[in-house]
Amino acid sequence: MNALSDLHATLDPSRKSWVESANDSASDFSIQNLPFGIFSDRRHGQQDDARRVGVAIGDQIVDLAALQAAGLLNVPSRADVFASALARDTLNDFIALGRDAWRSVRIQLSTLLARDTATLRDDAALRAKALVRQADAQLHLPVQIPGYTDFYSSKEHATNVGSMFRDPKNALLPNWSEMPIGYNGRASSVVVSGTPVSRPNGQLKLPDQERPVFGACRKLDIELEMGFVIGAGNALGEPVACADAEAHIFGMVLLNDWSARDIQQWEYVPLGPFNAKTFATTISPWIVTLDALERFRVAQPVQEPQPLAYLRHDGEHAFDIHLEVTLRPQQAKQASTIARTNFRHMYWTMAQQLAHHTVSGCNTRVGDLMGSGTISGPTEDSYGSLLELTWNGKKPLELREGGTRTFIEDGDELTLAGWCQGDGYRVGFGACAGQILPARREG
Amino acid sequence: MNALSDLHATLDPSRKSWVESANDSASDFSIQNLPFGIFSDRRHGQQDDARRVGVAIGDQIVDLAALQAAGLLNVPSRADVFASALARDTLNDFIALGRDAWRSVRIQLSTLLARDTATLRDDAALRAKALVRQADAQLHLPVQIPGYTDFYSSKEHATNVGSMFRDPKNALLPNWSEMPIGYNGRASSVVVSGTPVSRPNGQLKLPDQERPVFGACRKLDIELEMGFVIGAGNALGEPVACADAEAHIFGMVLLNDWSARDIQQWEYVPLGPFNAKTFATTISPWIVTLDALERFRVAQPVQEPQPLAYLRHDGEHAFDIHLEVTLRPQQAKQASTIARTNFRHMYWTMAQQLAHHTVSGCNTRVGDLMGSGTISGPTEDSYGSLLELTWNGKKPLELREGGTRTFIEDGDELTLAGWCQGDGYRVGFGACAGQILPARREG
Repeated sequence: MNALSDLHATLDPSRKSWVESANDSASDFSIQNLPFGIFSDRRHGQQDDARRVGVAIGDQIVDLAALQAAGLLNVPSRADVFASALARDTLNDFIALGRDAWRSVRIQLSTLLARDTATLRDDAALRAKALVRQADAQLHLPVQIPGYTDFYSSKEHATNVGSMFRDPKNALLPNWSEMPIGYNGRASSVVVSGTPVSRPNGQLKLPDQERPVFGACRKLDIELEMGFVIGAGNALGEPVACADAEAHIFGMVLLNDWSARDIQQWEYVPLGPFNAKTFATTISPWIVTLDALERFRVAQPVQEPQPLAYLRHDGEHAFDIHLEVTLRPQQAKQASTIARTNFRHMYWTMAQQLAHHTVSGCNTRVGDLMGSGTISGPTEDSYGSLLELTWNGKKPLELREGGTRTFIEDGDELTLAGWCQGDGYRVGFGACAGQILPARREG
Repeated sequence: MNALSDLHATLDPSRKSWVESANDSASDFSIQNLPFGIFSDRRHGQQDDARRVGVAIGDQIVDLAALQAAGLLNVPSRADVFASALARDTLNDFIALGRDAWRSVRIQLSTLLARDTATLRDDAALRAKALVRQADAQLHLPVQIPGYTDFYSSKEHATNVGSMFRDPKNALLPNWSEMPIGYNGRASSVVVSGTPVSRPNGQLKLPDQERPVFGACRKLDIELEMGFVIGAGNALGEPVACADAEAHIFGMVLLNDWSARDIQQWEYVPLGPFNAKTFATTISPWIVTLDALERFRVAQPVQEPQPLAYLRHDGEHAFDIHLEVTLRPQQAKQASTIARTNFRHMYWTMAQQLAHHTVSGCNTRVGDLMGSGTISGPTEDSYGSLLELTWNGKKPLELREGGTRTFIEDGDELTLAGWCQGDGYRVGFGACAGQILPARREG
């Protein structure tokens, strides 16, 4: 057996599944994808102890523990811990088995789910145990996140923000082109898609008043981002080289870095955003592995000036991932698409972000989440935040249904979507959605 | 039994212990203190599974699991989980038992260790099991830290930094007096006192060159801080009121927020410090409970303007804690005291910090660490960083032995100390120390 040729077989565009819904060209969860997540079966109640590892295929979820128990899935080198890693309420133990294990499990699943493999296809009793309809499942936060870092790696986004709040002629700060600027985020408030988010309260500095007032955020925004999840950490004092960085990444998710622009503008000097971001960050429930994204690898934008040596890598390290944001007002039947862009526009790559993050000696751990920063494209309809789309509220957006928007209103549901477009199939991320609830009343 | 009178009895200055070293007026670990930590017995090897909960008394550590096993320590309301919480390699499970449990355990220990209590004093066999000399013990990180936040709450420090890098006449930014400014730190690299710290590498922007260079930090600094540890978290969307905040705090530690000033100056605009701080943060191994600090409560500085309502509390919320920093060059026998100050100078209180942190709805979790920010006093010898003590290197410090210093040199050992001075006894924190190793060579 040749692991690399087995890997390539999982990516073959002509491979189809006996799970027919996976063959729909619009399904995010083709047999080429096979993303990992944590689910529980709603039909059995929602006790935490029922949470376990699943893989999405079409409109179904494969229960990995059930396949392992049936002897259809194994990792011989980690046999002692493999079964228990599948019965956990987060993916961390599974991820900690290592890259060879994730890759091998994905290859085994691809074979089991392929149209011509009879083992599971023709075993109705086992299928009933090992497949759960997504409609019957509850999805949970896929990883326990020891640390969350957010970068700021879209040149278009940084330029737009700099133009709006500083000087359009010198919109990019001098350090921006030299390093992937990042900051530590708040891991505790990362929630899974579908979790409602309350509008935050905080200090607002109104232009006509000398002192700040306390109240509900009036400029609530999204940030369209993607995040990557650390699959192999590094020890304190031992940086990850740029060339090795992708081997430390388990996979990617969609990420909405909800942002309170008015709170942010008042608080962020000199130590960066804090309460403007810590109230919630939403991620999509399925982690798409880098293996599944391999055929969508493209060249990153040209970097000028050439980065310092520790930030250099050969080859292609960007990914061609289509991205969309929709907004649906509470009473509206239809959602409006408010932005379309692509992850390939990002100036700094994930590998460069991780190399920079660790070059000081900082350690990372399995499950750490790293956000890309807002992903904005070059055109006015490709910006990844309402701040940019409405130019800080000056140019309201016209919705298909529900009026106009400058920033988010109570009841609005914001949804990020993302997918790689193959020839007749998609490798997609599912939804990253959240509805905004009214602010908590104080006193 | 009256819990509050029992608590007051543990703080009685006249109470002495049969552990005679605890009665030394210079000992940090008087019977009035009884701080919690995690230790292993060096004589039995250093396997992780030997880590367990201990309490410092004089030059000894009390092994709580041994006392529980002997029937001398109990928490009737949590009897099912109490024993297992003491056999863990972090304090998190013990802390999660709740405030009544910590308080009760400390009261029971105070009685058991009091001079007139014969139970343990006269039982040589049990003493041999339940007491370990600190000299024979290895101390470990006391908590698993889900989130680390660092504040910036010393008015003197913020004023000094503003004077140096901005405008001496408008040194304090307008938002500083309205809220305890804070930012998210990196939890993964928090280490326990005694862990060596490698000088970080990173991007340095030299004044005579157009582009940054990569290299070892040339302006390595300490920040003298204290930290508090969350004892009871809050749910997402449910802020902690300022008046209730202290009930959410388990206790305090000393904290050294190692800082690479040259890396920081180049990277920190606009999202705050990142690689300049993420390489290491050192904390002292013993967590001193707020109960033990109760007699050292003092009034906080007058706050002008009066804070917004959500940041107001009645009563005294500062603590009179003497602080010292010493520096010992690698070859020197003697350490030099380079700063002396007091925690009582802090403008924003811990209660205000926690109320502000959660007012947006941000959740906290047991074990979260919150740093005070650099603690600088009003005089030039009371500043909490070399940046301020040497005024960004312009005024070198003369050491007792080993020459002069502007910033930290390789081999230097920096130690923070802190204690409350009672009448004939101390409630102290032990050492928070770290030696700087040379930077890792690249390539």
